[in-house]
Amino acid sequence: MAGNIFGNLFRVTTFGESHGNALGGIIDGCPAGIELNFEEIQNELNRRRPGQSSIVTQRNEPDKVNFLSGILDNKTTGTPIGFVIYNKDHQSDDYRHIQNIYRPSHSDFTYEKKYGIRDYRGGGRSSARETICRVVAGSIAKQLIKDIKITSYVSSVGNISINKPYQDLDLSKIEESPIRCPDSYTAEKMISLIRKIQKKGDTIGGTITCVVKNVPVGIGEPVFNKLHAELAKAMLSINAVKGFEYGSGFFGSELTGSKHNDLFNSDGSTKTNFSGGILGGISNGMDIYFRIAFKPVATIMQKQKTIDKKGNLVFMEGKGRHDPCVLPRAIPIVESMTALVLADYWMYRKLSKYSSIRN
Amino acid sequence: MAGNIFGNLFRVTTFGESHGNALGGIIDGCPAGIELNFEEIQNELNRRRPGQSSIVTQRNEPDKVNFLSGILDNKTTGTPIGFVIYNKDHQSDDYRHIQNIYRPSHSDFTYEKKYGIRDYRGGGRSSARETICRVVAGSIAKQLIKDIKITSYVSSVGNISINKPYQDLDLSKIEESPIRCPDSYTAEKMISLIRKIQKKGDTIGGTITCVVKNVPVGIGEPVFNKLHAELAKAMLSINAVKGFEYGSGFFGSELTGSKHNDLFNSDGSTKTNFSGGILGGISNGMDIYFRIAFKPVATIMQKQKTIDKKGNLVFMEGKGRHDPCVLPRAIPIVESMTALVLADYWMYRKLSKYSSIRN
Amino acid sequence: MAGNIFGNLFRVTTFGESHGNALGGIIDGCPAGIELNFEEIQNELNRRRPGQSSIVTQRNEPDKVNFLSGILDNKTTGTPIGFVIYNKDHQSDDYRHIQNIYRPSHSDFTYEKKYGIRDYRGGGRSSARETICRVVAGSIAKQLIKDIKITSYVSSVGNISINKPYQDLDLSKIEESPIRCPDSYTAEKMISLIRKIQKKGDTIGGTITCVVKNVPVGIGEPVFNKLHAELAKAMLSINAVKGFEYGSGFFGSELTGSKHNDLFNSDGSTKTNFSGGILGGISNGMDIYFRIAFKPVATIMQKQKTIDKKGNLVFMEGKGRHDPCVLPRAIPIVESMTALVLADYWMYRKLSKYSSIRN
Amino acid sequence: MAGNIFGNLFRVTTFGESHGNALGGIIDGCPAGIELNFEEIQNELNRRRPGQSSIVTQRNEPDKVNFLSGILDNKTTGTPIGFVIYNKDHQSDDYRHIQNIYRPSHSDFTYEKKYGIRDYRGGGRSSARETICRVVAGSIAKQLIKDIKITSYVSSVGNISINKPYQDLDLSKIEESPIRCPDSYTAEKMISLIRKIQKKGDTIGGTITCVVKNVPVGIGEPVFNKLHAELAKAMLSINAVKGFEYGSGFFGSELTGSKHNDLFNSDGSTKTNFSGGILGGISNGMDIYFRIAFKPVATIMQKQKTIDKKGNLVFMEGKGRHDPCVLPRAIPIVESMTALVLADYWMYRKLSKYSSIRN
Repeated sequence: MAGNIFGNLFRVTTFGESHGNALGGIIDGCPAGIELNFEEIQNELNRRRPGQSSIVTQRNEPDKVNFLSGILDNKTTGTPIGFVIYNKDHQSDDYRHIQNIYRPSHSDFTYEKKYGIRDYRGGGRSSARETICRVVAGSIAKQLIKDIKITSYVSSVGNISINKPYQDLDLSKIEESPIRCPDSYTAEKMISLIRKIQKKGDTIGGTITCVVKNVPVGIGEPVFNKLHAELAKAMLSINAVKGFEYGSGFFGSELTGSKHNDLFNSDGSTKTNFSGGILGGISNGMDIYFRIAFKPVATIMQKQKTIDKKGNLVFMEGKGRHDPCVLPRAIPIVESMTALVLADYWMYRKLSKYSSIRN
Repeated sequence: MAGNIFGNLFRVTTFGESHGNALGGIIDGCPAGIELNFEEIQNELNRRRPGQSSIVTQRNEPDKVNFLSGILDNKTTGTPIGFVIYNKDHQSDDYRHIQNIYRPSHSDFTYEKKYGIRDYRGGGRSSARETICRVVAGSIAKQLIKDIKITSYVSSVGNISINKPYQDLDLSKIEESPIRCPDSYTAEKMISLIRKIQKKGDTIGGTITCVVKNVPVGIGEPVFNKLHAELAKAMLSINAVKGFEYGSGFFGSELTGSKHNDLFNSDGSTKTNFSGGILGGISNGMDIYFRIAFKPVATIMQKQKTIDKKGNLVFMEGKGRHDPCVLPRAIPIVESMTALVLADYWMYRKLSKYSSIRN
Repeated sequence: MAGNIFGNLFRVTTFGESHGNALGGIIDGCPAGIELNFEEIQNELNRRRPGQSSIVTQRNEPDKVNFLSGILDNKTTGTPIGFVIYNKDHQSDDYRHIQNIYRPSHSDFTYEKKYGIRDYRGGGRSSARETICRVVAGSIAKQLIKDIKITSYVSSVGNISINKPYQDLDLSKIEESPIRCPDSYTAEKMISLIRKIQKKGDTIGGTITCVVKNVPVGIGEPVFNKLHAELAKAMLSINAVKGFEYGSGFFGSELTGSKHNDLFNSDGSTKTNFSGGILGGISNGMDIYFRIAFKPVATIMQKQKTIDKKGNLVFMEGKGRHDPCVLPRAIPIVESMTALVLADYWMYRKLSKYSSIRN
Repeated sequence: MAGNIFGNLFRVTTFGESHGNALGGIIDGCPAGIELNFEEIQNELNRRRPGQSSIVTQRNEPDKVNFLSGILDNKTTGTPIGFVIYNKDHQSDDYRHIQNIYRPSHSDFTYEKKYGIRDYRGGGRSSARETICRVVAGSIAKQLIKDIKITSYVSSVGNISINKPYQDLDLSKIEESPIRCPDSYTAEKMISLIRKIQKKGDTIGGTITCVVKNVPVGIGEPVFNKLHAELAKAMLSINAVKGFEYGSGFFGSELTGSKHNDLFNSDGSTKTNFSGGILGGISNGMDIYFRIAFKPVATIMQKQKTIDKKGNLVFMEGKGRHDPCVLPRAIPIVESMTALVLADYWMYRKLSKYSSIRN
């Protein structure tokens, strides 16, 4: 398996299965001299944690990260930052029944065909538990680029969506509701929908909107590594994500150029921001914003027909503890992946212009 | 500038500006022994070529590719394939007027701030002319993975869209219309819309749908390099792309798990394909399909207010030869980027399982 | 800091400081389905371990590796293999006295200038303790390419050297002497030299010869990533290494082509092997052999003049537990780095020739 | 084939065969705003050129480089720099006789086994003609890091060597002799040896010493990417190189720590420089110096026994135009590879310490 490394200059490598001993990672390329706030890191993990409210999975993990290297007196030293999160509450017995079957819309089938072997316990490496390492690394990335403010919120659940642009929302209210939607009226509707779905043993998808403020001009590399292309990859690499659009997105494809062009103010800012803060793959200093679609969780508490390894049709029913809707817990993951992309390309930005050899 | 390299094992590096001497690239990692069909490569370039119909730009470039290495007796030798396309019809004078101004929704502003210098002639490196190298490399990638069939078509222009899933279309008809829409009724409507827009000196966006058939199981790497994440990055790296969705996409975010799950047939295929042929980042053997949003071309033939380098407000009007709608010419680019991703991960696939050292 | 990742397809990332909590690493890209022999891994660690004989450092570390992921029922699953080795016997107090001084021929000065901060405890990341992770990864690499036999031995200590080519030695005797020299007569002389040096509080350098047998033809990539170029990088990346030569090496530079050319036998093997098993960067099936020079350990138990951070001249004396001669403990490190290079390029080898898309 | 890309941040990709249409490359990552001196670039190519004196090959190539992109008004723009050198004087007929045979100590055998196909004309990709692209890229790298002075000279030919350290030589005299040895007495002896060897149709090896002055502190990344490890890889990637040593090198392995340690002056410089300007993989501001061994050219003008593809023993005799001793022409290649490594790690150096997000 390749693909457990993300980023180039600020680079994180991760490991770990849902029901293995531990998950962890290594950040290689973090500059020396950053004063780390460990409480903030733990806070991000808590936002992702299972069991934090009644609408998410009740798996009970403390999700405490141990840093093993790269830090002296709370400051990064420039050496790789190794970290580990031990699994505690892994009830692998819940998964014995799926050892020989392929769950619908899970990766059981593809993993087994590709590798000839599969860690069936809790989805193994394909479990969303893997994202915990992204949050650790992402929260360090956030501290590296601390003037940049990354905020995301649940903008729809099923067919219930906020019908306002982010500019009309009070983003300080996101954390007030368990669904992480800043519009309290919509949040209520989302929560009742989830409860209704949950009672049926079903699950539901939704979308998250992410807004990035205070981005300096010049982040992103043109051509193949456009900033929005890296963001798209980062977002689609999150479990269950099916789509990504930034700025005017799919709606922008319906417009004419004369409507869509963002006219300049004399300071280089623009009057509108259909561009979503990125032009030619490079940040232009305006807000970056994008929207991401999540499919409904594949594990449902209903009886489903599926097949076993030999192709026999069998019945299965979801066991274990699962989220009826992953959206609220995905918020810190989306923000972390955004921070990882921005930190990486912020470092590239230092290399664009020539400066004397002595510097 | 970083970011002129795409792929890892089948890797292409490109260079070239819109109005420089030439564009070109190097493919490193193409296996030895592939019999190349040069006519097919040129055919792909012709599909991307300006001047091929009345609804695209009239820049007249032969776009003939010269291969400089890596090929002996029409077969790849395993060494890097260097290629070059000389620019002929570059009327740089058309661009003198923009040397000191920043065009709205172009990358003039971001390039100049990032690099302190900008090749203003025809957009320089940020011009979509850059994509010609992608088509050369992509058409070789297509020949490497030749059993896989990649087809794409224009699924909407402005608010005119095909209201049928790809399964209900006759994809053999795509090349019959200049807009590359397989549904002749919709194609006609799209073309009239473009002509109307063009008369006003305006431009229009749209979407492209891409369908990949006959994909073997096991392509894609989980976690950060999921197959759809790489496809998303590849698509968003194309000029003017604003969004990407695969399988059920944004619509899937409105569904419940019980509706969205793809149930298996006993042979491992699935009854529905909301998953879009990819599970856990790995191809499952079903069709891969995705949809991409393009914004309207930023260069319009209308007078626009903008700013010069000093922040003065100035008026400008588009000159040069531009597309009112890039969609039909983007088709081979979309297919090429898809082929590059698939070729790269098809090569990774050979490494997943252990096989004896002697093989 | 970059540079904590080694390899491309079989790729290891490491972390950890000499006196931090732990060292560890992640192997990304190990194929699925390899049955691991953990005893062999621990055996390699024991060969590198401090305290194993009277001529090496007496730091007493159990050096027990914990695997955290990527393995199920003793078999690799294809997912990343995370591992950690906790530090136990780290007497950081031994290093207080060097917190503000730069030790001669150590990296204290360069680390501090480069990063502005330095983990002074035991050399921090620059300590040879870092190589423990290389041995873990390398011993897994050895099991991946298990038909290939990698053997190395101490070929000189100071000016005492074995004056025979490796073909005339009984390599099965290497582990019999604490100095890991297969020639018992020379081994004795080396050991007495080390004891003499040690009594004076001094240290001594030497060379290691590595022989790789049973290598299939075709490993290595021409041009920049020649097999011997990667081996050279791998060896020079080991602490204290000052030189590398393969095949005829420096001696070969004195010869004429007519003497140096290796003539073929009819089966493609060669009568002589000045080439050292590699032609054009690619293995030719003959034995690969190379020799590596190690400088004497910089920490000596004698009083030395040096400077502190402010440039004041100060006296210092080595404290802590150090090797008078690192050579015997470097043997498994040399072999591990060799295995990592070979495993990586053995995987590349699967990609050279075209084979049908369905395979 | 992989391995046609060198460097990470200052990255060059090359292509081209000895007798193909052209060779060329792309530099990705060169900062914007460097004023290029094209005469200097051509001068470097001339130093590498065949036919420049009676002791080198008489192939007559103008070796004129054409830059195709990335430069505006003689300044780098930050976009990739594409370049091409067309082959003119390629007398492929000289090589028909080797189409079906494997030349001793050439890569014919390994290329054919690895790729199943081989461009036999002039050695194809394995020809040292490939290094022309390294010189183009390297001479641009030199201009990027222009305060650093890289100088190399022939320090031995066969068993004739300069018996003085580089500090005792007048390096300004290197270009005065066709053998590029700064010591005129030794140079004469080298030249007569080469002429003698040449008359016999034979060839001879030798060593090159490279000295790098004025290097700032802090270049190089510890652990796997130590500066000297990258230099070793770079040097061993040059055709015919068999060994590398830096600083005290192999000789240093015979010393004791008390002799070998470089004591500090109060300004951080050292009294001796056994370390060769690098400590812990990072430059310490002292001169970097290293020595490289080249084997004798494998193509000799004498009758040799060898085998054809079927394993039949056949006789062959060198045809074509070849160097009796590659050393003088290798000088600019050694310097170019050195410059590429230093430029790449000089760029990494900008990333080590934290600096505010706004910078």
